[in-house]
Amino acid sequence: MPDLRNVGFMVGVLLLFIAAMMLLPLFISLYYGDGDTKAIIQSVIITAATGGLLLLLKPKRKDLGLREGFMVVAVSWAAMAIMGALPFYISGEIPSFTDCFFESMSGFTTTGASILGGNKTIESLPHGILFWRSLTHWIGGMGIILLSLAILPMLGVGGMQLFRAEVPGPTKDKLTPRIRDTAEILWYVYLGISVLEIVLLKFGGMSWFDSACHTFGTMATGGFSTRSASIAAYNSKYIEYVIIVFMFIAGVNFALHYRFLSKGAIGRYWESREFRLYLIIVAISTAIMMSTLIRNDPSRSLEICFRESAFQVVSILTTTGFGSADWEMWGSFAQVILVLLMVVGGMAGSTGGGVKVIRIQVLFSQVRVQLRRLIHPQAILPLRIGDQMIDDGIVHNVMGFLLAFGLLLAGSTALLALMGIDMVSSFGASIASLSNIGPGLGDFGPTDHYGWMPSAAKWVCAALMMLGRLEIFTVLVIFSRHFWKR
Amino acid sequence: MPDLRNVGFMVGVLLLFIAAMMLLPLFISLYYGDGDTKAIIQSVIITAATGGLLLLLKPKRKDLGLREGFMVVAVSWAAMAIMGALPFYISGEIPSFTDCFFESMSGFTTTGASILGGNKTIESLPHGILFWRSLTHWIGGMGIILLSLAILPMLGVGGMQLFRAEVPGPTKDKLTPRIRDTAEILWYVYLGISVLEIVLLKFGGMSWFDSACHTFGTMATGGFSTRSASIAAYNSKYIEYVIIVFMFIAGVNFALHYRFLSKGAIGRYWESREFRLYLIIVAISTAIMMSTLIRNDPSRSLEICFRESAFQVVSILTTTGFGSADWEMWGSFAQVILVLLMVVGGMAGSTGGGVKVIRIQVLFSQVRVQLRRLIHPQAILPLRIGDQMIDDGIVHNVMGFLLAFGLLLAGSTALLALMGIDMVSSFGASIASLSNIGPGLGDFGPTDHYGWMPSAAKWVCAALMMLGRLEIFTVLVIFSRHFWKR
Repeated sequence: MPDLRNVGFMVGVLLLFIAAMMLLPLFISLYYGDGDTKAIIQSVIITAATGGLLLLLKPKRKDLGLREGFMVVAVSWAAMAIMGALPFYISGEIPSFTDCFFESMSGFTTTGASILGGNKTIESLPHGILFWRSLTHWIGGMGIILLSLAILPMLGVGGMQLFRAEVPGPTKDKLTPRIRDTAEILWYVYLGISVLEIVLLKFGGMSWFDSACHTFGTMATGGFSTRSASIAAYNSKYIEYVIIVFMFIAGVNFALHYRFLSKGAIGRYWESREFRLYLIIVAISTAIMMSTLIRNDPSRSLEICFRESAFQVVSILTTTGFGSADWEMWGSFAQVILVLLMVVGGMAGSTGGGVKVIRIQVLFSQVRVQLRRLIHPQAILPLRIGDQMIDDGIVHNVMGFLLAFGLLLAGSTALLALMGIDMVSSFGASIASLSNIGPGLGDFGPTDHYGWMPSAAKWVCAALMMLGRLEIFTVLVIFSRHFWKR
Repeated sequence: MPDLRNVGFMVGVLLLFIAAMMLLPLFISLYYGDGDTKAIIQSVIITAATGGLLLLLKPKRKDLGLREGFMVVAVSWAAMAIMGALPFYISGEIPSFTDCFFESMSGFTTTGASILGGNKTIESLPHGILFWRSLTHWIGGMGIILLSLAILPMLGVGGMQLFRAEVPGPTKDKLTPRIRDTAEILWYVYLGISVLEIVLLKFGGMSWFDSACHTFGTMATGGFSTRSASIAAYNSKYIEYVIIVFMFIAGVNFALHYRFLSKGAIGRYWESREFRLYLIIVAISTAIMMSTLIRNDPSRSLEICFRESAFQVVSILTTTGFGSADWEMWGSFAQVILVLLMVVGGMAGSTGGGVKVIRIQVLFSQVRVQLRRLIHPQAILPLRIGDQMIDDGIVHNVMGFLLAFGLLLAGSTALLALMGIDMVSSFGASIASLSNIGPGLGDFGPTDHYGWMPSAAKWVCAALMMLGRLEIFTVLVIFSRHFWKR
C-alpha cells in the first residue's frame, strides 16, 4: 500500500507552485482590468490554502517508493486540473464545472481541446482568464518533460526507458536530488526556447499578450489559441512559419536540445535514430499532403500548398492542434494520413503526445525480427535499433503500451457512441483526447468544439487526456488490486 | 532458399484435388442445364492440366522444410483463387478477370465479400456457377481447419501454438504422415456437421440446392448466399435459428468438436477457457445489441429483437457475414460493437477469421501482467491462462500479430482512401477483408457490394483476405530478404 501522507505532501508542494503560477494571470488581469481580478485572487487563495494544508501531512520518510511515485504523478495532474478550473468557474465565464474541469485538464495535459465555441467564444474571455488558460499548457508541458525524462524512467514506464543510457542514470531510492538537477537544466532550456518564440512572434506583429499565449500553446504542443480561428486568424505567412518551426522543436526530445545548447553540436540531433525517423515522417507526410492539395486545386500557389501541408502535418504529428486550414475538406486520403500521424505523436522526451515515434520504430523492428524468427526458429535474434540492443522486457512494455492504447481507443469510442455521438466523431474525440491533440474528426474537427458534448462524454475525454498524457500504465496501475496490497 | 520444385509439386497435388472438386458443380450444371456446363468442363481441364504439369516437377526429397512449408501455404491459396476464378470467367458471367479473382479469393478465404449486386445480381448466375461459388467457401474452410490445427503450429505461426499440448504433437521433419491423420479425422467432423446442417435447412423449406450452398457458407464462416438479400430472403425464424447455431459451431475450435464427437464429453467444451470467453462475448454482445434494438423501436417483439441481435452478433463475430438485417441502421453504438467483434473473430482452430478470441485473451492477460510488473519490478511474473503458463516467445508472437494486424489495417485504409474511397468505407472494406468477414461499413455495408470498387482496390482487398486468412506472417515472411537467402 502506498504511503498516502507522503503523496499528499508532494501534491501540496505542487499546489503551492500552481498558486504561485496563478500570480502571472493576476498581474495580467490587473493590467487589463477586465473584471476577472477577484476570481483569480480567490483561486490563488484556495489553491495555496489546499496546498498548505497538505503540507501539514509531514511524511515520516523523505524518499518516495515506487507506488508513491505512481500515485504522486496521477494525483498531481488531477489536482492541477481541479485547481486550474477555479479561475474559469469562480469568474463565471464558464458556468458548468464539468466544462471548467475539461478545459483545465485539456490545458495541463497539453491537449488543447476546448469547450469554447458556438455561443461562448474564446474572444469573449477576459485577458487574465485567457492567459491562465494558455499558461496551463505551458506548466503542463514543463511537467511532461520532467516526467518523461526524469521521473517515469525510474518508475519503469514510458518511451524514454529505451534511452536509459542517455539520460543521467537513476540510482535506486535516491530520486529527489537527481530530479532536482534534471529539472533545473530542462527548465532553462524550455524557458529559453519559449522566450525566443515570444520575441519572434512579437516581431511578426502579434501583441505581447498573443505572443506569450501562442508560445505557451506551441512549446507545450497544446494548441489553445486566443482566437476562435486559431493561427488562421493572423493571416500571416511569417507567423505560420515561425509556429511550424517551434512546433517541430517542441516535438523533439528535450534532452537533445539540452545537449545541443550546452555543447553546440548540432550533429547530435542527427545521431538520434528517433529524430531521423521523426524528420522523415514530417518530410514524407508534408510531401504527400502537398501533392493532395495541389491536385485538389491546381490554381493555388506552391508556397500556400507547402505551408498549409507543413503546418497541419507538424501541428497534428506533434499533437499541438493549432489550425491554419480546415483539413476535413482535404479529402479522405489526407484525413487518413492525419489520423495515422495523430497516433504516432512526437518524440519521447518531448512535450508531444501520441504513442511516440520511438515506439513505432520498435514496433516495425519487432515485426521484422519476428519474420526472421520464423525462418530461423532456433536462432537468438535480439531486437536492435541502430547499434543498441533492446532488452526483451522493454520490447514487451512497448508492445503492451501500443495494445493498451488500442484497447482504450476502442473502449472509449464505444462509450462515446453509447452516448449518442456518431461513430466517426466518437473515434475522433477519443483519439484527439488520448493522443492529446485537441481537434479530432467528424463533429470534433478542426473548426468545431467540444462544448455540445454530453457531460458524461466530457469526463470520459478528460480521463483519456490524463491516461494518454501519463503514458496510460502510470494511471491504470493505481486501479490494480496489487497496488493497494500491503 | 526454398526448394521450388518441392513447392510446385505440392501445389500440383492440390490443383488436382480442386479439379476433382469442380466435378460437383459440373453435375449440378448438367442437372439444371443452365448453359454453364461447357465453361465448367474447360475449367476442370485447365486446372487438372496445370496440376498434372506441376507433378512432373518430381522433387528429390519428400519432406518439406520450414520455408517450403510457408511457400506451399501461400502459393496454394493464390493458385486456388486463380483456378477458382475460371468458371466465372470462362462462362462470361463475370466479365472482368479482376472481379472473378476477387470473388474466388473471397470464396477460398471464406470472406464472402462479393462483387455481385447492382446490375449483375446473384440470382442471375446459372446453378453450376453459383454452386461452385459457394463450394469455394467449403473447400477454403476445410483448408483453414487443417492449416490452423495441423500445419501452422509446426511452422510456428497462428493462435493454435498456444494449444501445442492439446493438438496431437508435431514431431520435427515428419509432417506428412501426421498431417494425413489429422486431416482425415477433421474431414469427417467437418463433413458430418455439414450434412446435418443441410438436412436441417432442407427441413425448414429450403431447396436441396440452397441448403447445400448456405451450409457451405455457414460451416466455412464464409457468407456467400444464393440470394441478394442473404438469409433475410427466406423470412423464416426456423432457418435463422438453425444458421445462428451452425455459425456458432463453425466459430468453435474443431479440435473441441472432434473430442466431443469421439468421446461424447460435452463438458470438454467448457474446460476450454477460449470457448468460455467466446460464449461470454456472444452472450454479452447479444444482450447489448438487443437492448439497443428494443430502445430503437419498442413496438417490436422481444423475440425479433433477440433473433436479429443474436444473428448479427454471431454472424459478425464468427466472420461469416450472412445478413438478416441492415445493422447500419442500428445507430452508432451498435456499429462500434460490431466493428469490435469484427476484429475479435472466432476461436483458433475454427473456420472463423479475425485475430481470434485466444489472442484477445492473451492481450488482456498481458496488460494485467504488465501492471503487476510495474509494482513488482524484480518479480518473475509469467503470463498464465488458467493453469497454463504461456511461454514468453508466444506472448511476443501474439502481440506482434495483433500489432501487425493493426498496421495492415491502417496501411490499407490509407491505400483505399488514396483511390478516392471515403474514410469510413476504406476502413470498412479493410477490416472486412482482413478479418475475412465480407460486409464492412459505409459503402460496403451489409446491403452493399464491392462491384463498384476501382480494380486496384479489389486487388488490395484480395491481398488483405489472403493475409488475414493465412495469419499474416505466413504470407509476409515470403517477402522478407532472409527467406530467399541460401
